[in-house]
Amino acid sequence: MSGQEFPAADGDAQAPARDPRVADWWRTSIIEMSPGVIRYRGHAIEDLIGQVSFAQMIWLMTRGELPGAEQAQLLDMALMAAVDHGPQAPSVAIARMAATCGVGLNNAMASAMNVLGDVHGGAGEQCVEMLQSIAARMDDGATLEAAVAAGLDEAIALRGKFVSGFGHRFHPVDPRAPRLLALVDEAAQLGVVSGRFAAIGRAVEAELQRRKDGRRIPMNIDGATAVIYAELGFPAPLARGLFCLSRSVGILAHAWEQTQQGGRNKGPMPRDYLWTYDGPPPVRPR
Amino acid sequence: MSGQEFPAADGDAQAPARDPRVADWWRTSIIEMSPGVIRYRGHAIEDLIGQVSFAQMIWLMTRGELPGAEQAQLLDMALMAAVDHGPQAPSVAIARMAATCGVGLNNAMASAMNVLGDVHGGAGEQCVEMLQSIAARMDDGATLEAAVAAGLDEAIALRGKFVSGFGHRFHPVDPRAPRLLALVDEAAQLGVVSGRFAAIGRAVEAELQRRKDGRRIPMNIDGATAVIYAELGFPAPLARGLFCLSRSVGILAHAWEQTQQGGRNKGPMPRDYLWTYDGPPPVRPR
Amino acid sequence: MSGQEFPAADGDAQAPARDPRVADWWRTSIIEMSPGVIRYRGHAIEDLIGQVSFAQMIWLMTRGELPGAEQAQLLDMALMAAVDHGPQAPSVAIARMAATCGVGLNNAMASAMNVLGDVHGGAGEQCVEMLQSIAARMDDGATLEAAVAAGLDEAIALRGKFVSGFGHRFHPVDPRAPRLLALVDEAAQLGVVSGRFAAIGRAVEAELQRRKDGRRIPMNIDGATAVIYAELGFPAPLARGLFCLSRSVGILAHAWEQTQQGGRNKGPMPRDYLWTYDGPPPVRPR
Amino acid sequence: MSGQEFPAADGDAQAPARDPRVADWWRTSIIEMSPGVIRYRGHAIEDLIGQVSFAQMIWLMTRGELPGAEQAQLLDMALMAAVDHGPQAPSVAIARMAATCGVGLNNAMASAMNVLGDVHGGAGEQCVEMLQSIAARMDDGATLEAAVAAGLDEAIALRGKFVSGFGHRFHPVDPRAPRLLALVDEAAQLGVVSGRFAAIGRAVEAELQRRKDGRRIPMNIDGATAVIYAELGFPAPLARGLFCLSRSVGILAHAWEQTQQGGRNKGPMPRDYLWTYDGPPPVRPR
Repeated sequence: MSGQEFPAADGDAQAPARDPRVADWWRTSIIEMSPGVIRYRGHAIEDLIGQVSFAQMIWLMTRGELPGAEQAQLLDMALMAAVDHGPQAPSVAIARMAATCGVGLNNAMASAMNVLGDVHGGAGEQCVEMLQSIAARMDDGATLEAAVAAGLDEAIALRGKFVSGFGHRFHPVDPRAPRLLALVDEAAQLGVVSGRFAAIGRAVEAELQRRKDGRRIPMNIDGATAVIYAELGFPAPLARGLFCLSRSVGILAHAWEQTQQGGRNKGPMPRDYLWTYDGPPPVRPR
Repeated sequence: MSGQEFPAADGDAQAPARDPRVADWWRTSIIEMSPGVIRYRGHAIEDLIGQVSFAQMIWLMTRGELPGAEQAQLLDMALMAAVDHGPQAPSVAIARMAATCGVGLNNAMASAMNVLGDVHGGAGEQCVEMLQSIAARMDDGATLEAAVAAGLDEAIALRGKFVSGFGHRFHPVDPRAPRLLALVDEAAQLGVVSGRFAAIGRAVEAELQRRKDGRRIPMNIDGATAVIYAELGFPAPLARGLFCLSRSVGILAHAWEQTQQGGRNKGPMPRDYLWTYDGPPPVRPR
Repeated sequence: MSGQEFPAADGDAQAPARDPRVADWWRTSIIEMSPGVIRYRGHAIEDLIGQVSFAQMIWLMTRGELPGAEQAQLLDMALMAAVDHGPQAPSVAIARMAATCGVGLNNAMASAMNVLGDVHGGAGEQCVEMLQSIAARMDDGATLEAAVAAGLDEAIALRGKFVSGFGHRFHPVDPRAPRLLALVDEAAQLGVVSGRFAAIGRAVEAELQRRKDGRRIPMNIDGATAVIYAELGFPAPLARGLFCLSRSVGILAHAWEQTQQGGRNKGPMPRDYLWTYDGPPPVRPR
Repeated sequence: MSGQEFPAADGDAQAPARDPRVADWWRTSIIEMSPGVIRYRGHAIEDLIGQVSFAQMIWLMTRGELPGAEQAQLLDMALMAAVDHGPQAPSVAIARMAATCGVGLNNAMASAMNVLGDVHGGAGEQCVEMLQSIAARMDDGATLEAAVAAGLDEAIALRGKFVSGFGHRFHPVDPRAPRLLALVDEAAQLGVVSGRFAAIGRAVEAELQRRKDGRRIPMNIDGATAVIYAELGFPAPLARGLFCLSRSVGILAHAWEQTQQGGRNKGPMPRDYLWTYDGPPPVRPR
């Protein structure tokens, strides 16, 4: 571990000494560079290009190791499934409005990605946490049922009765979840993943249904991708990061479509609507 | 409380019906508009301009009422005192780097303001919370000393041993705090504020010193502005918002200075420095 | 003018050498610091607090000199007059939606400020540019009328027929503009400003009316604040920065009001609305 | 093309009328939804999951059609090759500093993505523009050489002597470019792309070398990905959007690594450095 050295920009043989603490201040194990050389986690970029997919690269960059192609395909699939949920989502509405305000595509995307916070972009992370907390209880000897009940109780105590990853205010059944779960099952049969978190996820579904007297609260996209991220061993906070990568695609597509539709300073409703004012009546000037 | 109606843009007498639920979706008590009319909290803008200062307007907008001129002056002072702490602050470094990347001043300011989070911009809010929690204990009958001890314990339990608003890793004594406190005292003597939170703040200082065996952990800028915001009756979360308004000034000044200095893609250290790489050694291609 | 030196944090007498190029990389003429000392543009902060208003501080920080109190009052007024134009503005709608997504107030404000780009926040800057370009023509000997005609032609060639600072799609007369202009006139009579840019602004209005066969395109808030910023000698790009400071107030007020109203993932229209889909019909699976 | 209708949330048979102009205000051809149904560009999500890669989805969302697997693989490769260039890049430094300020991963990513503007993230877009402008000249009958010379002249007139996509201030040869070009050649031989833009890119390189008296200004990552995006038919502005998607990966990886390294309010240089102050000397109080 040492500061990288390279000739001063002007090629001066008598380059002044550099303070290694400055180089250390920005130390990283992700990328190494010297003129003509770029290595990610030790892999030269020219060895990766054409050999490694975008999904494998995402994994390598965030976790330090190259995954197998089959595991990366599951990751690819989770990223692909969550790209968009339409302009009723605040992030997408923001991207579209921003695109009419005279800023760059990158700015419109940033204003939108910025709101993928605990409520809008955190459900996957919260669900991975719960799934992992249930798995940890099982590692400590609890049965699946007991671990699920305790994990659910904990999640509800932390965040309230709406359990992240389950139920949807719009879709009675989220069409993305069963399809993703089926592909996790396939991968588990092939030994690509263990299938443990798919089982936990379904047990959570069953426990929720039991508590709701038989009403089903099915897994949603956040639950299904959380199962995949947990199966693949991602730490929970990265689930939010991966969701940001995924949803950026819809954000970009909508910002771009809006750019082509045109408009200036697009507001949230048609121009001849005004908001309801519910404040104090007109005040007489003093 | 009702949806505002105004003639359709084209002046058509047969304007189509509007769904009042859409207007209600964006209801607000802050601003009322009709063509030629703008009222903030009931006050026509033309009655405010020239009569009301920027600080009074900030108060009116966030709290719904016009403050007196003296109270507004205290607010003005708190805003004025916290505008900048230099390029070692991540927000200011971000503003300066952003200004070299081909984005607008507004974008550079936004990237910077965005990082005024719990750690970088939340100390004032956290301190107002503690001050108010101490005051509430006194309202419930506790003595100042007991309330301060309990409030401090609570703050430390919540956020760790560094108490927001007290102590500074760079300034032995933050030169902004004593001066602001002196002005709060003056205002209290004139009856502009009660002086209660200044007393609480000083009691916290004393209690911290007692716990540190006599070593002083003096109030810093966040503590002093928190005292002012609490004296003026601001809810704690607005303390963060006010800090954002204040620090935006330094952010703007630095982004603008950097624009004039020039540079493209300014990195965090001089060009002939590279970061230290501490990851795995080069991997042989497969 | 040299890199500041100060004892290492741990008080070690044998502090390691520091590379002055690193300190120079972040050089600034805005702020000087040493332990216990903060100076803005040479002024110790404790000398400024209580003596200098927030508006004076904004001026000092962005321009390097302390303005007189009367000039600062004009600046204060321009900042105060432009704080909000309601939730139909994309920035305010963004702030309100962001506030329901589980992010901090600072984040909601940043997503909103970020869209104050060329179209949503650039009119003041563009208008100052035009006013200054007209003044420069007069300095070169042109008459007011000729300079205005040429300046207008240039602005229209650059940005199209909607001249920044004049006309409003909602207000037949923007109620903020005449009041601000009246106060500029007062200030000019007192010698606080020259009145030159107010005259130019009015001449632009007259020329626009002449070109529109008598239909008035009155100055709007961006035009009136541009007159003030030009009277006060601000470079055009700072007009956008000042607008960002001003509009941040409305952005904060709306984000905060929305926080109190509650809601989760607030979309742009009521929940039982969906967008119109105008893409291809359902595709049969392959 | 009509507003989508769906039962009111409460299942009320007497749902109030909705104003179709509100649904139209947010019209899009990207996504269609009804309860239990999500279609992107007409494709039901359950038909896409497991059949279509993330790269194909990015294409479908931004352009409206599903690409073939081979074309999508080229896109995947371009996205994969540009994920990171280390902490000297302002975006990555911003992501790392932001991660220490008490904001979410999504906020850190947004502050970083926000600076991928004309200078930091626009080179690919600018290069695609030039490549397409050269191709258009050839479509109009110009020879490759003449079209390249004219296209280069135009680019230089627009943006100065540094031609976007060519040359690198750090790498004598950018190791990513030759490898990407080789894969474009392979794809051209297989008929996946035409190879036209690879030829144009190389002709630009040759013309630049001729103008520099034999000194090579080789294609860089932005040039090589621009060739790929142009070969695949992407409009130039999307090249910036795609770069944002790609670089988000490095941004996420660095923000996450910094989170694990810890730190609070990470500045741009080690704590015992201060910036150089080059402003006015201390001012005596009035």
